[in-house]
Amino acid sequence: MAKNVFDEIPKIEKETGKLSSAQKILLTTDGSVTSILDVLKGHVDINTLKQEFIPANEEISSILKINQGDSVNYRVVIIKTEKEPLIYAVSLVPINRLNDEFKEDLIRADIPIGRILKKHNIESRREIKSIFIEKPDNELKEIFDTDSPFLCRTYNIIHHGEILIHLKEMFPCSLFLE
Amino acid sequence: MAKNVFDEIPKIEKETGKLSSAQKILLTTDGSVTSILDVLKGHVDINTLKQEFIPANEEISSILKINQGDSVNYRVVIIKTEKEPLIYAVSLVPINRLNDEFKEDLIRADIPIGRILKKHNIESRREIKSIFIEKPDNELKEIFDTDSPFLCRTYNIIHHGEILIHLKEMFPCSLFLE
Repeated sequence: MAKNVFDEIPKIEKETGKLSSAQKILLTTDGSVTSILDVLKGHVDINTLKQEFIPANEEISSILKINQGDSVNYRVVIIKTEKEPLIYAVSLVPINRLNDEFKEDLIRADIPIGRILKKHNIESRREIKSIFIEKPDNELKEIFDTDSPFLCRTYNIIHHGEILIHLKEMFPCSLFLE
Repeated sequence: MAKNVFDEIPKIEKETGKLSSAQKILLTTDGSVTSILDVLKGHVDINTLKQEFIPANEEISSILKINQGDSVNYRVVIIKTEKEPLIYAVSLVPINRLNDEFKEDLIRADIPIGRILKKHNIESRREIKSIFIEKPDNELKEIFDTDSPFLCRTYNIIHHGEILIHLKEMFPCSLFLE
């Protein structure tokens, strides 16, 4: 799988022009994106746009490998510095795979997921599922103040052999050019 | 700890001049360095310079939190493309924390550790211990064909709450400038 995902980079570059090292790493890393943003941009925070519990529909149950109707935390955040938005991130977390402390931190909603995992010393692995380009909708255009196409990826954070978190992350091609 | 480690970057930049995004990420990421090199440089391989089992001395037993005399796999490799050496890496692995399949892959010696972890779906977390500059010795100068100072870090890969691998990675300031 990893191999296929890497093969997407040259295809994307045909549309966007050459990606920077930082962009390529942000699209493919299996490490904490929060840590990378911390070192590139100074300490980052999140702005939570949406945070709710929803029952898994067919699509979500298939993504998370849970039953339809199971409770899922659905969170949409902007990871940002004080000055600028950096990454738009949508997460799906099946609630009954969480312990109480993790759940509290997730609901408090002001902590990036990478930092929650670190705080609780959670051992995990990340499986990158897809990398692609997407045109921004009006919400994204407004938040990032750009018409640039967005670089996107989806991935799973696996813990105890199960999907603990499914994430989609997006940032405009005009960011992280260095 | 992570916070302190990030604080080292500006100190290092006082000596080396501004680091590139790729250099800063390589020094601080808690993800697979092999993956990052794969996406930046094309598929990388390793050249094993040393690979042996040694009894832990006082220093090693303290680093790995094992008893003195316990058997440790000591491995020195160059991660490289076909064209150029990229990273010099020294690893210490306490043997009795490994299962047999992992041990075989480690001893086969031609697989980067990031790829071994991925192959066996190992869930882990990485704790960056230190980031610093070091002058190259003659071996490093010769391998990398440079007198540049080297950017270095040490970190632990933690699995089941114990140190599975201690690593030191080094690369010359003249690499990953983009």
